[in-house]
Amino acid sequence: MSKGTVVLAYSGGLDTSCILVWLKEQGYDVITYLANIGQDEDFEAARKKAESLGAKKVFIEDLRTEFVEHFIWPAVQANAVYEDRYLLGTAVARPCIARRQVEIARREGAQFVSHGATGKGNDQIRFELTCYALYPEVKIIAPWRIPEFYNRFRGRTDLMEYAKEHGIPVPVTPRAPWSMDANLMHISKPSLQSTDQCHECVTLCVFQSRAPADLYLMTKNPEDSPNVQDVLEIEFKKGVPVKVTNMNDGISKTTALDIFSYLNEIGGKHGVGRIDIVENRFIGMKSRGIYETPGGTVLLKAHLDIETFTMDKEVRRIKQGLGIKFSELVYNGFWYSPECDFVRHCIAKSQENVEGKVQLSVFKGQVYILGRESPKSLYNEELVSMDVQGDYDPCDASGFIRINAVRLAFTLKSKNGCLLKPAHTYASSFFIYFSSAG
Amino acid sequence: MSKGTVVLAYSGGLDTSCILVWLKEQGYDVITYLANIGQDEDFEAARKKAESLGAKKVFIEDLRTEFVEHFIWPAVQANAVYEDRYLLGTAVARPCIARRQVEIARREGAQFVSHGATGKGNDQIRFELTCYALYPEVKIIAPWRIPEFYNRFRGRTDLMEYAKEHGIPVPVTPRAPWSMDANLMHISKPSLQSTDQCHECVTLCVFQSRAPADLYLMTKNPEDSPNVQDVLEIEFKKGVPVKVTNMNDGISKTTALDIFSYLNEIGGKHGVGRIDIVENRFIGMKSRGIYETPGGTVLLKAHLDIETFTMDKEVRRIKQGLGIKFSELVYNGFWYSPECDFVRHCIAKSQENVEGKVQLSVFKGQVYILGRESPKSLYNEELVSMDVQGDYDPCDASGFIRINAVRLAFTLKSKNGCLLKPAHTYASSFFIYFSSAG
Amino acid sequence: MSKGTVVLAYSGGLDTSCILVWLKEQGYDVITYLANIGQDEDFEAARKKAESLGAKKVFIEDLRTEFVEHFIWPAVQANAVYEDRYLLGTAVARPCIARRQVEIARREGAQFVSHGATGKGNDQIRFELTCYALYPEVKIIAPWRIPEFYNRFRGRTDLMEYAKEHGIPVPVTPRAPWSMDANLMHISKPSLQSTDQCHECVTLCVFQSRAPADLYLMTKNPEDSPNVQDVLEIEFKKGVPVKVTNMNDGISKTTALDIFSYLNEIGGKHGVGRIDIVENRFIGMKSRGIYETPGGTVLLKAHLDIETFTMDKEVRRIKQGLGIKFSELVYNGFWYSPECDFVRHCIAKSQENVEGKVQLSVFKGQVYILGRESPKSLYNEELVSMDVQGDYDPCDASGFIRINAVRLAFTLKSKNGCLLKPAHTYASSFFIYFSSAG
Amino acid sequence: MSKGTVVLAYSGGLDTSCILVWLKEQGYDVITYLANIGQDEDFEAARKKAESLGAKKVFIEDLRTEFVEHFIWPAVQANAVYEDRYLLGTAVARPCIARRQVEIARREGAQFVSHGATGKGNDQIRFELTCYALYPEVKIIAPWRIPEFYNRFRGRTDLMEYAKEHGIPVPVTPRAPWSMDANLMHISKPSLQSTDQCHECVTLCVFQSRAPADLYLMTKNPEDSPNVQDVLEIEFKKGVPVKVTNMNDGISKTTALDIFSYLNEIGGKHGVGRIDIVENRFIGMKSRGIYETPGGTVLLKAHLDIETFTMDKEVRRIKQGLGIKFSELVYNGFWYSPECDFVRHCIAKSQENVEGKVQLSVFKGQVYILGRESPKSLYNEELVSMDVQGDYDPCDASGFIRINAVRLAFTLKSKNGCLLKPAHTYASSFFIYFSSAG
Repeated sequence: MSKGTVVLAYSGGLDTSCILVWLKEQGYDVITYLANIGQDEDFEAARKKAESLGAKKVFIEDLRTEFVEHFIWPAVQANAVYEDRYLLGTAVARPCIARRQVEIARREGAQFVSHGATGKGNDQIRFELTCYALYPEVKIIAPWRIPEFYNRFRGRTDLMEYAKEHGIPVPVTPRAPWSMDANLMHISKPSLQSTDQCHECVTLCVFQSRAPADLYLMTKNPEDSPNVQDVLEIEFKKGVPVKVTNMNDGISKTTALDIFSYLNEIGGKHGVGRIDIVENRFIGMKSRGIYETPGGTVLLKAHLDIETFTMDKEVRRIKQGLGIKFSELVYNGFWYSPECDFVRHCIAKSQENVEGKVQLSVFKGQVYILGRESPKSLYNEELVSMDVQGDYDPCDASGFIRINAVRLAFTLKSKNGCLLKPAHTYASSFFIYFSSAG
Repeated sequence: MSKGTVVLAYSGGLDTSCILVWLKEQGYDVITYLANIGQDEDFEAARKKAESLGAKKVFIEDLRTEFVEHFIWPAVQANAVYEDRYLLGTAVARPCIARRQVEIARREGAQFVSHGATGKGNDQIRFELTCYALYPEVKIIAPWRIPEFYNRFRGRTDLMEYAKEHGIPVPVTPRAPWSMDANLMHISKPSLQSTDQCHECVTLCVFQSRAPADLYLMTKNPEDSPNVQDVLEIEFKKGVPVKVTNMNDGISKTTALDIFSYLNEIGGKHGVGRIDIVENRFIGMKSRGIYETPGGTVLLKAHLDIETFTMDKEVRRIKQGLGIKFSELVYNGFWYSPECDFVRHCIAKSQENVEGKVQLSVFKGQVYILGRESPKSLYNEELVSMDVQGDYDPCDASGFIRINAVRLAFTLKSKNGCLLKPAHTYASSFFIYFSSAG
Repeated sequence: MSKGTVVLAYSGGLDTSCILVWLKEQGYDVITYLANIGQDEDFEAARKKAESLGAKKVFIEDLRTEFVEHFIWPAVQANAVYEDRYLLGTAVARPCIARRQVEIARREGAQFVSHGATGKGNDQIRFELTCYALYPEVKIIAPWRIPEFYNRFRGRTDLMEYAKEHGIPVPVTPRAPWSMDANLMHISKPSLQSTDQCHECVTLCVFQSRAPADLYLMTKNPEDSPNVQDVLEIEFKKGVPVKVTNMNDGISKTTALDIFSYLNEIGGKHGVGRIDIVENRFIGMKSRGIYETPGGTVLLKAHLDIETFTMDKEVRRIKQGLGIKFSELVYNGFWYSPECDFVRHCIAKSQENVEGKVQLSVFKGQVYILGRESPKSLYNEELVSMDVQGDYDPCDASGFIRINAVRLAFTLKSKNGCLLKPAHTYASSFFIYFSSAG
Repeated sequence: MSKGTVVLAYSGGLDTSCILVWLKEQGYDVITYLANIGQDEDFEAARKKAESLGAKKVFIEDLRTEFVEHFIWPAVQANAVYEDRYLLGTAVARPCIARRQVEIARREGAQFVSHGATGKGNDQIRFELTCYALYPEVKIIAPWRIPEFYNRFRGRTDLMEYAKEHGIPVPVTPRAPWSMDANLMHISKPSLQSTDQCHECVTLCVFQSRAPADLYLMTKNPEDSPNVQDVLEIEFKKGVPVKVTNMNDGISKTTALDIFSYLNEIGGKHGVGRIDIVENRFIGMKSRGIYETPGGTVLLKAHLDIETFTMDKEVRRIKQGLGIKFSELVYNGFWYSPECDFVRHCIAKSQENVEGKVQLSVFKGQVYILGRESPKSLYNEELVSMDVQGDYDPCDASGFIRINAVRLAFTLKSKNGCLLKPAHTYASSFFIYFSSAG
């Protein structure tokens, strides 16, 4: 008798194929689910493989438009960057994938979901928090955290052997010495994603060593990229792109998926969006990651520009803080949480007037903003000019400065006694400077 | 009889030369003060000019080392960036210059200081808040805010005429159609800095137009920059660089001024650090700025990398917030304020273990981090590896995730009634997704 | 010929009566405007006085309901408290008053508005920022900042004399030695609000001295308040009270104005809401204030309680930060600003489920929460109980704790070398404690 | 053969006595450790009981002075309050207790520590994070999370039975229907702390019901408290109290422990510091808590007052944010973490000038600030007075206000088109008001 039905997030690769068979061995009915979020994959081959391995049903779902519109766009609105550098390409994909997975599980009456994420990473958390948030009664089977599983499969060799024994097709090409997450938004090569890498991936584990050139898949090496720039014009409404036009050849795109794919193409061609960083995982360990996010990088720069052009200064400050919060929440897997919902709502509200066109050039790994225009611009040409006959009276600035100085001037007077105290190294303490002034 | 003594921040240019003479006309004794903070200037010529125009004393002060150590280094520690893009090159220079100015004023018994900053910009505020904070009794003469002055000098023509009448040497080369602030850290070309630009500087005022190529002085055009990258190793202690080595040719620098100058040289050679932005001035108007910050940009990237490598995750989050606060304070002119003093102290404290080496390549306008190492690294190679026999038990992650989900799962249950409510556009609301799930 | 029309915020008192006449002397047509925001005032007498002094028109506007619904309620939703103590009673009234004032000015075609606020306080800013925000072209006449006015009226004696000369009725009762701002929300007695107090109001200026008992008008002295508590039940919807019921006698109120007035009555009867504080004004000086906010204090405590009961923990954290921001903005006079509008929107969004009833007792200056209930409660009785057969598995907590400790444990290990370094006084440094552990 | 040595945090009560015997049954050597942090306990009786039950060693440690100086004082400096209401009395005690426990474990060569905290509360986390942070290799035995234990002891009856069987003295008085945590700082009665309460403690579990009068132990019922107030003068240095004097009778205290104990005595006598709240536990569930914190409440009010009097306004704002962060960290158990260490350092720095005397009265459950004085006051009597001949020029305020309005005025102008859009309920939107103004 079946222990119940599992919806397994299936990639078509060796790991999740072994998990499929292993789950069957454990007595479960297995439904496989493969989300198309823009990765380079032979989906039909994956379908056949799953069926041949005994999946009761196979779902292959094209989530690309949904991924761009409901997950990437809010990240663009937020200027989402984790720890000042990582554009969250994997993090925004996980809730998109898991949401559909539990939808299928509910629809198919499955009590279980399963995935192949490892026990030390962020992805297990992102997957499972989404599952619990949207299907609180669900039970999750995470083989890489189950001792019977991970003790049995201690490396790639064990998986290969198991595959051979159970008729699982074994990849013929040797595997890259790093694991990879690929989707429309980015390709990541975190240091460790599977069990058998540790002895191999010297590249990413050891910090002194550099990432090899063939690590990069979405972006050209800037040394080999074109010597002629592409100039793009991106049009935004409510903080999201609604049109991109290449000023060189007039090509333009207007649907969400087309726009983002085109920005990936142009960004990738010019080597934009490569980073090599160390980041702090939610579970408190540091790891190294190599990411390529061509389209996302172009959009971040363009959105920052049009936003500052059209958004009030002080709203911007508050929104910047909310964007940082959003990034942390998404990184940690809390896309589907009351607080992330709240923050997304607030950020969306802030974007109502973020509208206009940004021109930029893409060249040798860089994005250069060239200009912007907007019907909602808060830039006041007359005001900023020197024409003092306008509304602005320069004398007002004197009062403004003196009132701002009231507090500062009094502070010094009231602290006269401690003018000579030693200052902290490099802290440039307020009161150190008059030691010689007597 | 003299109205008193004024210490005038003198640049040697047309504007402040006219101010010098005008102040004398008004009955003041004028001491000129010119700070060397790394700008390209003929200081001796400026001295002679000031003397010939009747300055009672002339001070030319080399503040370059002080500028790097006491002003740029704290900005590096803070990862100081205003509104996500501007590296504050002008803002950190102002308090450095003004501090010495009031020091001279105190020493020389001058009750007045004066400067040539305009009445709509940030610099007047940065100068004057520093003056009031460090010399509360000082009186400030800001001619561009005095109606008798600005009504008399309505454009460059008026200044030229006045110059001719009063024996002020007039520049022979035609002036660039934009004003400029240059120092060791950057060159800025804000849209408006002087009185006669408005009809000229179409370039910067109109947003649709692009900055012309000859606008850039510190950085090569990336199209013309070398096709071979430079690889640098930067060593940090307490969050500031103590050594830079070029891995291509072995050249290395070890003093603050040498290090920063060398990073400017290499960064500039490869076209690093150009931005074209709109920013929000303190006084509430938006303005366009074109900046070149080659060395600062290299350092920002390198410091971010070594900091994340050596700093605890949660300390980093708190420090990131303090860094944003620091940037706003410095931008607004509050370097010498109790709060900026406090924030600098806290940031300096956070840097105690920010130590190690970062390798990076500089190429075609970009900086690529290649690797890092540190005796204070918090990266735990054993922990992050898949060797489950270590301290880390993957089963713990199950508990971690489930406890984090307690709140999320209950929220959904308690809101079951409103699952179908419409969501905000692009806000990806929490509860929209099961409209079809029944 | 008239210089134009001024809408003067008129209180009926000596100061603004003198201003009315003085404005006429200066050649303006004067329209007086008196807002009823719940202060104790003879409005008809004020009307007659204004008419007799030559006001061209007299507007007396009952803004009480609007004040409660559109200004006090958002403050309740925000838990608005400035600097941890001040409930913003004056600050929320100013934009309400000034908004109507500029509405009248626009309608009557007046180019000017005027008020009697002093030149060192917050109120001038709150008034004028509202005016500029809603009527950007308006010109403001602030007599207490005009040298001809303030040099002429250096104290109450000067005003009295001017009044006698110009037929302005002079108050017969001696004036309290402090000025006062009263409205529905509170009565404040800031240290200095008018010109002639400084030699008189020893009470508030000198910090060592205590506020005299007769200073308090809205609240009973707790020593004299009833020995029997009142028990109230307050019902909230969307974060604002919709009903209050006295459990002692069954009295209940259901309109905004009635609810707030009744809470003032009960709070005042029991001496609730008195504070004596030093606060930081926007313009950077500290001042002492004595405030009575009976109804507001009751509501703050009740709202905090129902909010925590019905709001997700992490939403609460973000909203707490927004509430602090809101309080600063309102204190500084930025009610009508893009950022305050944005923050109010976000806070209102957070209140959607803040619904339910709070019971509390009011007694001898204190408010004690007794219990709460809500259809939107996020309290999970089953979960919090010890019935381990529920969804919650205590073993999960072990994993949760161990994962949270990953970072902590490694930090100590990696810092082993510096365990014995001396710690900061009282800072309880992390690493001091094992000095004896060897 | 022994499985090893356990240091058990022993209270002398039924639960931990059973745990002691159960641990022995499981094969461990047990060392008991009882911290004196000011709770009302017969320590010698507890020692004898532990010895009679087979503890190999018994440690009874007087941590009271350390608790006040190293844990309560930093909380006072921080104005530490969790979720706007809870003063963290239990949370600050846990790291103090656990720190000594691991010190003993290290010294005695014990590999294990154990405690009697339940599996749903915060205390388990606070204990264990401290243990892991300071003794990373330690193993923790938490019986209430071990199925063999909690399934065996499903209620008080099971514990009583086990006690009888194993010669554990059974309490003769019936137990209060709630559990309790008591220390110098407070007494808490959270809804659920032990296994057998759920059917009993109707009081705390059901929100509609009120806490019974006999629940309170540290504080008099305000209805029964004295009709005469006590007036205290508290002197602070570096943000911590160094002396308290009763102005009624001249009694004064000067050591940390004496000061805090005396404030408890006076606060308790007048019924100060009672709250009944719902709070959010770290693990994401809400729980009800009844707390009494007499001395802590007095100190919070006094410290807030002297701090605002002596601290710069903008430093205060930043420090307020750090204080909220500190409170969350301490509540969640992260006292010994890099981030809490960092925050404590920053807060301690901010307290350098927090010095002076506060007078306050304590009466019927309330604390009223009466006045304050300080050699480090930043209150500027001359400045705040109306004497316009001073440094302050009221005209400056006009410029200050107009510059602040630049942004606001332009915003309205640029949004003219959308003046009539509908506003959010109660959000008092910026642009709603002129719908009638045309």
